Amino acid sequence: MKRTPINDLFQHVGQTVCIEGFVGANRNLGRMQFLAINDGTGTAQIANDKKGETGQLFAESIKALTKGSTVRIEGTVTKLEKSPFIEVIPSSVTATSHAEAPLPIQADSSLDLQMDHRHVSLRDPKNHLIFCIQTTFEHALREFWVKRGFVEIHSPKLMGTPSESGAELFELDYFGRKAYLAQSPQFYKQMAMAAGMGSVFEIGPVFRANPSFTSRHDTEFTSVDMEMSWVNSHEDVMAMEEALLTHAFKQVKKKHGKEIQELFGINIKVPSTPFPRIAFADAIQLLEKQFNHKIPAGSDLDPQGERYLHDHFRKTTGHDFVFVTDYPAKFRAFYHMRYPDRPDTTKSFDLLYRGLEITTGAQREHRLDVLAQQAAEKGLSQGPLQHYFNFFRHGCPPHGGCGIGLTRILMKMLDLENVRQVTFLYRGPNRLEP
Amino acid sequence: MKRTPINDLFQHVGQTVCIEGFVGANRNLGRMQFLAINDGTGTAQIANDKKGETGQLFAESIKALTKGSTVRIEGTVTKLEKSPFIEVIPSSVTATSHAEAPLPIQADSSLDLQMDHRHVSLRDPKNHLIFCIQTTFEHALREFWVKRGFVEIHSPKLMGTPSESGAELFELDYFGRKAYLAQSPQFYKQMAMAAGMGSVFEIGPVFRANPSFTSRHDTEFTSVDMEMSWVNSHEDVMAMEEALLTHAFKQVKKKHGKEIQELFGINIKVPSTPFPRIAFADAIQLLEKQFNHKIPAGSDLDPQGERYLHDHFRKTTGHDFVFVTDYPAKFRAFYHMRYPDRPDTTKSFDLLYRGLEITTGAQREHRLDVLAQQAAEKGLSQGPLQHYFNFFRHGCPPHGGCGIGLTRILMKMLDLENVRQVTFLYRGPNRLEP
Repeated sequence: MKRTPINDLFQHVGQTVCIEGFVGANRNLGRMQFLAINDGTGTAQIANDKKGETGQLFAESIKALTKGSTVRIEGTVTKLEKSPFIEVIPSSVTATSHAEAPLPIQADSSLDLQMDHRHVSLRDPKNHLIFCIQTTFEHALREFWVKRGFVEIHSPKLMGTPSESGAELFELDYFGRKAYLAQSPQFYKQMAMAAGMGSVFEIGPVFRANPSFTSRHDTEFTSVDMEMSWVNSHEDVMAMEEALLTHAFKQVKKKHGKEIQELFGINIKVPSTPFPRIAFADAIQLLEKQFNHKIPAGSDLDPQGERYLHDHFRKTTGHDFVFVTDYPAKFRAFYHMRYPDRPDTTKSFDLLYRGLEITTGAQREHRLDVLAQQAAEKGLSQGPLQHYFNFFRHGCPPHGGCGIGLTRILMKMLDLENVRQVTFLYRGPNRLEP
Repeated sequence: MKRTPINDLFQHVGQTVCIEGFVGANRNLGRMQFLAINDGTGTAQIANDKKGETGQLFAESIKALTKGSTVRIEGTVTKLEKSPFIEVIPSSVTATSHAEAPLPIQADSSLDLQMDHRHVSLRDPKNHLIFCIQTTFEHALREFWVKRGFVEIHSPKLMGTPSESGAELFELDYFGRKAYLAQSPQFYKQMAMAAGMGSVFEIGPVFRANPSFTSRHDTEFTSVDMEMSWVNSHEDVMAMEEALLTHAFKQVKKKHGKEIQELFGINIKVPSTPFPRIAFADAIQLLEKQFNHKIPAGSDLDPQGERYLHDHFRKTTGHDFVFVTDYPAKFRAFYHMRYPDRPDTTKSFDLLYRGLEITTGAQREHRLDVLAQQAAEKGLSQGPLQHYFNFFRHGCPPHGGCGIGLTRILMKMLDLENVRQVTFLYRGPNRLEP
């Protein structure tokens, strides 16, 4: 018999159906057994009369169903008198898998233990909702891009030379030579610009051999990347990104807003555009004046400074997002374009969401001579960059783009503490399992 | 001035616009210079009168524009008399990047040389179209899944233990221990089933340290994966896959059919469902009877046999797709479920498209005791499988799924010879660059 999703049962009152699901509560009340089963679409109550003619056939098998086991039930959908509820009176009960009891984690188990048993911890409705939100969020991003003619790329994760600085790099043996895992699709999405692909996007894994254990770092994460040809400045990228994120937040609110309110107690706020912007130099001044938070000369913004900026802009504009622009060249990658009249300042930005950096972006330097000079200034050895430089030898549109951290957005959106909570299977310096 | 996409120029006749693009043909005819520039949306002709009042200002800079350089032009959109065409009379010409001449590859350069200079070879309109098709194809897949409540996952590519047999595995140093690159998301998408995620999908990279140089293998490729809870058999997966692919082919035909016809001379055929099916044992018989092609007892289908099957089903049913089902257990992974009454036969399938295997799928064995026994029978050491086995200790829905090779589909759809032609940046045993 074909399975009926549990949320469709109301359409089958009086009929015989087949349902399947995970066993939740299994209660024994007098001559009745009540079993809650959930198939991801909803929860159904099974009511079995142990003394009933058919009910006695199933009493033992229902009793044996531990929490988390899966079961296939055929039975009649029955509407309860004077109640909006329905229950299923079984005519067949088949355990399809057996869960060891007790389950290895409880709701209050440590995050580490929950990650050890991710196959159980993800059953928590809040955790399940996180990945439904992620699905909607990503699909909304892609809808936005596809509608605007962006081309999807899958850049290689195996590289013959390091993609960026060479720090925090995973290295492997590749048929007798060395290969490296990509730390970002940066060089390849720029190649796509030289290749005339116009505007491109990629959502895929990147790898950082970062030994730190903070709540916002991992050794493998999902990077959301886009790159656009024919931009005038980083402002074109920022305008695209704010429209992109606004669309995605709107879709999340539309599809999951109610459930997020119920399970997380959070009202999703769809941002308005434009997001506020502040230049790096002005941000430094503001932090000192408003918050007595002094960034030492020659230092980059620190996480506390970023949180203060959020406080300021939330108070003054109501916004959770703020672009910090025009970073000094010394804090940025060699390929960020610089202002012609201010060669120490880049046409770049970070996007902060609730005080956390979620994006780094810039217009890129597409002129080979300038690019090579900027790499040399940073003290980078030119050898490993030859393949990258080659991309710019045969014409390349002015272009810019950004990379967005998916888990950081989800974490902040749901007011969670740790990227591990919004990662399907977290990878850190001492976690490769399960 | 804001850039106008070239395909919008017809709406701006008589107006001054700014356009940008790659330089194509650059011709000098008497007192006129004609420049073709392409921005990805279309090609515009720039006409400059070298003796004209303003035209003489640009004569030198237009002359210097090599093929492949990029240029920014402001000018007036002018309709040609007695012609449907328009041209742009420049009022400003700025080279934005310079291409070395000659370009390093020509249309007839070897595939290897084209891959060396992928940033140029991808400019070929056929190559560009391939990645537009890929974008549409993937977006259609995701639309299909999202509409049906599938959840998107990003499974880790770094693993503490091998995901499958241990053969063809890339290994790396991970903070003093060994890690492996995922050969498929298999174990993790099954974990998602135990975790109650229902049905899931993932499109992402997988890695195979395969030393072979065939036209259909690479060391890194994009795998399209789905996995479904509460299936009755592999037939549920096959029914979902044929509907999925049919939807994606339909979208490709709708959006690119005309251009594919023009550039590749191919009429995209949207398949009808159901696809034909044949059991492995019947396929062996058919090959011997119809094609005198004998598969030795105890051997799997070979590529020639698969091509013959295509010939047969194309002739008899008009179909380019055929499911081969019920493979002997010895040719399949230990986690494929077997028929209760035929323990040497799996509830599995391959999908052949034009004679090439593009999918392997199955109902999975979700009962831990049976699963462990099947692994032992295959001689697999149980140690590395403990984390995997753990997924099945606390209940797991009956489930099944499949993995689909994206590049193989694109290659066959466009009647191309080699997966390298449909890969953004191919990786093989001796290619890690660019």
